Amino acid sequence: MRPPAYQMLADELRTEITSGRLRPGERLPPEPELCIRSGVSRSTVREALRLLASQHLIITTRGVTGGSFVAHPDAAQICEGLTTGLTLLTNSATVGFTDVLELRTALEVPAAAMAAHRRTDTDVAFLRAAMFDPAGDDDARMCGAAAAFHAAVCKATRNPLFELVTRPVYDASCGDDVIRDLPEGYWAEVDRDHRELLARILARDPDGAATAARIHLEHVAEANRRSLELNGDHQRTPATSVQSA
Amino acid sequence: MRPPAYQMLADELRTEITSGRLRPGERLPPEPELCIRSGVSRSTVREALRLLASQHLIITTRGVTGGSFVAHPDAAQICEGLTTGLTLLTNSATVGFTDVLELRTALEVPAAAMAAHRRTDTDVAFLRAAMFDPAGDDDARMCGAAAAFHAAVCKATRNPLFELVTRPVYDASCGDDVIRDLPEGYWAEVDRDHRELLARILARDPDGAATAARIHLEHVAEANRRSLELNGDHQRTPATSVQSA
Repeated sequence: MRPPAYQMLADELRTEITSGRLRPGERLPPEPELCIRSGVSRSTVREALRLLASQHLIITTRGVTGGSFVAHPDAAQICEGLTTGLTLLTNSATVGFTDVLELRTALEVPAAAMAAHRRTDTDVAFLRAAMFDPAGDDDARMCGAAAAFHAAVCKATRNPLFELVTRPVYDASCGDDVIRDLPEGYWAEVDRDHRELLARILARDPDGAATAARIHLEHVAEANRRSLELNGDHQRTPATSVQSA
Repeated sequence: MRPPAYQMLADELRTEITSGRLRPGERLPPEPELCIRSGVSRSTVREALRLLASQHLIITTRGVTGGSFVAHPDAAQICEGLTTGLTLLTNSATVGFTDVLELRTALEVPAAAMAAHRRTDTDVAFLRAAMFDPAGDDDARMCGAAAAFHAAVCKATRNPLFELVTRPVYDASCGDDVIRDLPEGYWAEVDRDHRELLARILARDPDGAATAARIHLEHVAEANRRSLELNGDHQRTPATSVQSA
């Protein structure tokens, strides 16, 4: 099936933007020119521009000096899109909790080592500020606090891509169903693990930090296995899904 | 600044979808009900639904049995969104080529080990089919062929999330500027590396596969350093960016 004309024009303009031929801040050709160039109607051009705007690739302003301009890439928006996508996939049958934990391990173990190498004093202040009282009783809030700690570790890697990718993967591992079933003493164990990881990062000990991150994720996996057994929940299968993405 | 009403309604409906309260395939409440529930006009409701449709979260059909339905998550679309985002970031000054290679290493080294553990005969057939003639002279096409090989490795991990995340990161490491500056003999070296990685996966040797993946990425980094020196290109700085995402 041939995609609709507005989609084809949007794809074409998107390629111009991602290839760097149209740079952030640059103005797109005016609507009449786009009509002539692609042989489509004014309303088709507008539909294409609307689509690109909804994907945060362009910003359209009104008035005499108005027009459509290439947006500057926004890490927060990329992060949000990925979080939505990963959350939907982990809600579906195609991706299991174990899949998410494997990806977290791939990202967070080297991130811990990098953080131990590169952390600045500001990073340390952020990490300390992200420690939280494990005695609270609001699991959703604790989950958010733990996410902030992992975000601080990623920030200390000094590689913005680790921040960008790790947070959505973490969030996908903290769905409502996971939070609901946390075993007794879970947050005290998380707190011990975080303190050990913080100590290794402070000591500038990359190997120790990587080991602490790995052990923490093994604890998370183990807690999930226990809660699965307790609840006899067969939907969140611990076996790796063999279905392809 | 308070976001516009259609944005707020879209965010609300998105949360219903990602939390699983509205499941894939389920019908959204009809427009009049959404108007009443959120106290906004029909055109605001339509704008919100349009936004969700452009983000591939719902599908709206016309006719008597028409309406808006929660879409099934589509890994290819999530992949496309992430590719666009990462490509834009690597085009910008916030993310360097070294950042992308570090993330590729974090993903591809454990993926190689998993593939050696879990690969099926079908995976092996895909991997063999993805070998390519390194003597070609179209760098963009060779880049695509190399991407297909790495995708086949990820597929053999049997974890769909590795396929989903690794491809966009690979593509972001293959921008026009990188392809333009490849040093002499680059593809022959890539071919040797791929053959070694394939051999370790065939031998079901996880440690060997991880090592082969790591050495390959060191070769890619080294080739990039050489081309930087040759071209005196200071834009693609090899130092890790300290700017936060």
